[in-house]
Amino acid sequence: MNSESNKPINNIALKDLNLPYDLKKLTSDQCRDLCKEIRSILIKTVSCNGGHLASNLGVVELTMALHRVFSSPDDKLVWDVGHQTYTHKILTGRLDRFSTLRQENGISGFPKPEESIHDSFISGHSSTSVSVACGIAEAMKLQQKTDNYAVAIIGDGAFTGGLAYEGLNNAGKSNSNLIVILNHNDMSISKNVGAFAKYLSSIRNKEKYVNTKNAVEQVLKKTPVVGAPISKALVASKTALKGVVLKGNTMFEDFGFVYLGPVNGHDIEELEKVLSLAKTFKKPVFVHVNTVKGKGYLPAERNPGEYHGIARFDIMTGNPEVVSSDSYSSVFGRELVRIARTNNKICAITAAMKYGTGLQYFAEEFKNRFYDVGIAEQHAVTYSSALSMMGMIPVFAVYSSFLQRAYDQLIHDASLSGAHIVIGIDRAGLIGEDGETHQGLFDVGMLTTVPGITIFSPSCYDELKAALHKAVDDYSGIVCIRYPRGNDCTSFDKKSDKADWCYYSQSDSESENLLISYGRIFDDLYKASGILKSMNISCDILKLTKIYPLDDEAVAKACRYKNIIFFEEGMKNGGIAEHFLMRLAENGFHNNYHTKSVNGFVKQATVKKQLSYECFDCSSMAQFAADLLNNDKEIKKDET
Amino acid sequence: MNSESNKPINNIALKDLNLPYDLKKLTSDQCRDLCKEIRSILIKTVSCNGGHLASNLGVVELTMALHRVFSSPDDKLVWDVGHQTYTHKILTGRLDRFSTLRQENGISGFPKPEESIHDSFISGHSSTSVSVACGIAEAMKLQQKTDNYAVAIIGDGAFTGGLAYEGLNNAGKSNSNLIVILNHNDMSISKNVGAFAKYLSSIRNKEKYVNTKNAVEQVLKKTPVVGAPISKALVASKTALKGVVLKGNTMFEDFGFVYLGPVNGHDIEELEKVLSLAKTFKKPVFVHVNTVKGKGYLPAERNPGEYHGIARFDIMTGNPEVVSSDSYSSVFGRELVRIARTNNKICAITAAMKYGTGLQYFAEEFKNRFYDVGIAEQHAVTYSSALSMMGMIPVFAVYSSFLQRAYDQLIHDASLSGAHIVIGIDRAGLIGEDGETHQGLFDVGMLTTVPGITIFSPSCYDELKAALHKAVDDYSGIVCIRYPRGNDCTSFDKKSDKADWCYYSQSDSESENLLISYGRIFDDLYKASGILKSMNISCDILKLTKIYPLDDEAVAKACRYKNIIFFEEGMKNGGIAEHFLMRLAENGFHNNYHTKSVNGFVKQATVKKQLSYECFDCSSMAQFAADLLNNDKEIKKDET
Repeated sequence: MNSESNKPINNIALKDLNLPYDLKKLTSDQCRDLCKEIRSILIKTVSCNGGHLASNLGVVELTMALHRVFSSPDDKLVWDVGHQTYTHKILTGRLDRFSTLRQENGISGFPKPEESIHDSFISGHSSTSVSVACGIAEAMKLQQKTDNYAVAIIGDGAFTGGLAYEGLNNAGKSNSNLIVILNHNDMSISKNVGAFAKYLSSIRNKEKYVNTKNAVEQVLKKTPVVGAPISKALVASKTALKGVVLKGNTMFEDFGFVYLGPVNGHDIEELEKVLSLAKTFKKPVFVHVNTVKGKGYLPAERNPGEYHGIARFDIMTGNPEVVSSDSYSSVFGRELVRIARTNNKICAITAAMKYGTGLQYFAEEFKNRFYDVGIAEQHAVTYSSALSMMGMIPVFAVYSSFLQRAYDQLIHDASLSGAHIVIGIDRAGLIGEDGETHQGLFDVGMLTTVPGITIFSPSCYDELKAALHKAVDDYSGIVCIRYPRGNDCTSFDKKSDKADWCYYSQSDSESENLLISYGRIFDDLYKASGILKSMNISCDILKLTKIYPLDDEAVAKACRYKNIIFFEEGMKNGGIAEHFLMRLAENGFHNNYHTKSVNGFVKQATVKKQLSYECFDCSSMAQFAADLLNNDKEIKKDET
Repeated sequence: MNSESNKPINNIALKDLNLPYDLKKLTSDQCRDLCKEIRSILIKTVSCNGGHLASNLGVVELTMALHRVFSSPDDKLVWDVGHQTYTHKILTGRLDRFSTLRQENGISGFPKPEESIHDSFISGHSSTSVSVACGIAEAMKLQQKTDNYAVAIIGDGAFTGGLAYEGLNNAGKSNSNLIVILNHNDMSISKNVGAFAKYLSSIRNKEKYVNTKNAVEQVLKKTPVVGAPISKALVASKTALKGVVLKGNTMFEDFGFVYLGPVNGHDIEELEKVLSLAKTFKKPVFVHVNTVKGKGYLPAERNPGEYHGIARFDIMTGNPEVVSSDSYSSVFGRELVRIARTNNKICAITAAMKYGTGLQYFAEEFKNRFYDVGIAEQHAVTYSSALSMMGMIPVFAVYSSFLQRAYDQLIHDASLSGAHIVIGIDRAGLIGEDGETHQGLFDVGMLTTVPGITIFSPSCYDELKAALHKAVDDYSGIVCIRYPRGNDCTSFDKKSDKADWCYYSQSDSESENLLISYGRIFDDLYKASGILKSMNISCDILKLTKIYPLDDEAVAKACRYKNIIFFEEGMKNGGIAEHFLMRLAENGFHNNYHTKSVNGFVKQATVKKQLSYECFDCSSMAQFAADLLNNDKEIKKDET
């Protein structure tokens, strides 16, 4: 938009602008300069802090164009998945704090209304934006805000999730100011899958592109090319224009949308023309934008999958910092390959997380038994149930937070039909820098309501491998194995006093105190018991490996203690600590029971810091126990 | 299929046949006779037992054709939602037991593998069939069962659910023997909604119908028209045929399916031709079948919505048995209208359950603030969250069992963003004849893991109304009100000793025993306390109305008791009884705590019977308490 009425700002830099408002005053050349500056900030910041790089590099021009054509916060930009909002953050007044991206107390890697009025809605999980924008647009309609728009920006990957379709199905019928922008890069996290993706690609490069361009240009030629007048002129010539542009026959038109595009997502001027046109219809419009994931940084363009979510890396070479060769994910993935070599019933399923869950090894070796179903956790569970009914053994590897999408399918399709499904629950517990939207704290509460389920929570690689074998060979029904993000740093020498590894207990003394835990934090609890010993507080310890159903013997052993403290890296309600107390009550336990668990959403920080804040490092746990147990002693003194 | 090689059976009746196997020996005329017999059985049985009528009347011919063209159980028929399988049940050896439909120990109203090898998969919730059939077909492929088929039969209503789309997205890409049959009647439970429904209708009556018919006939004319040879001939002329039939450009072809149809779903011969053709492709085929919901019974054809799920009715007049003019649903719906008259922020949302949830009153009076989103609970919650962010007050009325679909949206879209959403949770608790798939027993465990949520469980209409007012006016965040199916039959005179109705307690004595409950069953617990009194067992009672978060004062009051028994009409894990115990433990409670709750799926029976079996009628509760409390007394005697 080469505005003549507003004074253009020359030789600009981001820091000199009042953002996003000044963007509308700039020339296209100035915008292109800013895009270069933004890209270098993105690369620099992510190389230091880690984060989502490729997706953000792909939407620099699109974000710029959106803020020039629309007026946030009156118009609402709704970003699907939300990890591609870095440019949006830079362009809405957060440049100075952008170096704190994903750090404690810093800028979130996702839209966050409490951070800025320009972040209209929280997102982190996929496929929500159409529903959200649909609701916002409807509210605008009810509130007579006829000049405001709700704009969903959604990738083709997110369209593999059923919620996006539910949104589309409801969006097209309304006459609200809803604009859905497809950010089309042929990728979700890795290469996008499914029929819909194929369909989108088939219309990606059609001649309509040219038609749109010509049609828009034709109209614009006859129009004074400045700010608001554009829309007015477009409205005036709308009918004529429609005839030229809307020749297509896409499924989006079948769904009640006006379809515009495809348009080059790295050409700011063209983007602005199409977005301005989209505003004129006053009904749902679907804008198809072609982008290149990783655009402008060669290592990311070449390997967009790797640069989707990435740790710190070296800018010059593009090489990521090597943290550890192993992780719970890779150990899980490789052990599954070993099992599948002698068991041809094993099938592996992922919801667009082949690499994240370590299933790439399986995919390589057993291509015909590997299924990437897209970001479709519901389908993954129901599909697995059907495979199981036919005698296969499906293993679904999924992040804890995303499994929440499949709660009903776990109950209705898997549990009720008695399907034998193994679920590898990755990123269970605190997950660090991704923050509130991604915490793996709900799975235990959710899963223990599902009848007949079994849950293992290994605290080291060896237990993970053993649990996977047991889950495949020795158990039936839904068998879950939950393990944390990152790698095993257990110092505790694992021994089990029960052949089937249900639990481990250690009682050095005739102690009245018992500390219980499971999973990753047990290692620190073990250390905490050492600290307590040095404070002359003797504590026995109990580690659960099969955390559900609870082991009768473990419960019976616990019953004799005067004080029990249960540390749980998960939500309190519905957690194992609650179930354990119930079992104790049934066994006639009448003594003191304390828990330390999580009670809400946990903000971004390193995992280490989060564990510490939530009282799960060894000194915090020791302190927590000491306070309780000393108190009890004092109470006893008062009583006697 | 006028078979000449197999001897036709004349003057047949269902009872004389070895079903489903004999079906293939019949003439089309004989089939039509059987369809008449089936319809009269359906009408008679549902008029006595209640159940789903209209949808079953619509698929009589389709079911017949399926069993003639496919060979169950080697071929797997997967029925979506499952409530339209009555004909399937009659045709697969369950005629003699069909009069027990939906009754205790009788035939289930849904597919149930334990009932018959011809029921390939459990269903009751919507939109699962494509995923299931997809998994079955894939397993057949892996197991080299190249002559078997997986056939999903799914209504257009079920296609409003995102899971169906996730299934479609994954189905089209495989080369498995998957056939998806669209049972198209323009209805879900009431009139179907959304863009996809409109799209289906747009292709419903196209000329392709004729094309298909002619093309098939053309081929068949040249072919010996008997059983297996049909397919062979069709395979031979497949290429020629494709040219004629597959001219279309539907989104199903975009999704990788072969599209056949639309075909008249009440013409057995035509159905068989198209289904036989579908078998020849050996890749995913989509068959579009037009049916009339309620076909063959005029009252149901005229009012398919009313005859979707219906109570006992009079066959001659079609008039349903009038049970009660009021129900929790209608009281909720009418009170919401009253509130909305003075509060124009109120929006009402339903997922295809306008009548079931009592929202028809709202829909009539506030058409522009009423949203039927289809069978799309995920979208309903996310959409509601967005409406709330814009200052509206969305009220989503939904059955407990179906809300399970929206667990992630409750956490990620509603709770995390602090949206104020009111959820009317209908059919909470035991729901009677629909059985395992529909029990409302999971919502409390699921919902109490969601941070910041509030849950009311009124035990009578007055409390329901009061809770709704409070939810709208006095609370923020997600506020749920859960209430049972059916009507209020409370005899207990409700009084609250706390102004905000958090709880009600009654202590007549210095009793050591406390009975706790909430919701519908409290009335019987109150009576049980009377029975216990007559047995010289004195019990105080505590009724929770706001069941979560727990009221501090109520917990504090409970702490003093020697014995506490908590009766909960819901799953044990994650239930209020568990949370209550945890709170007691935090308050230093050291005495006896017992619970009676539900521990798995509950089979079909009347609600009254289910309540009794689960120990929630007054005499069962009295007995349960007496056994525990007498035991305790005896134990005390032994101790002293």
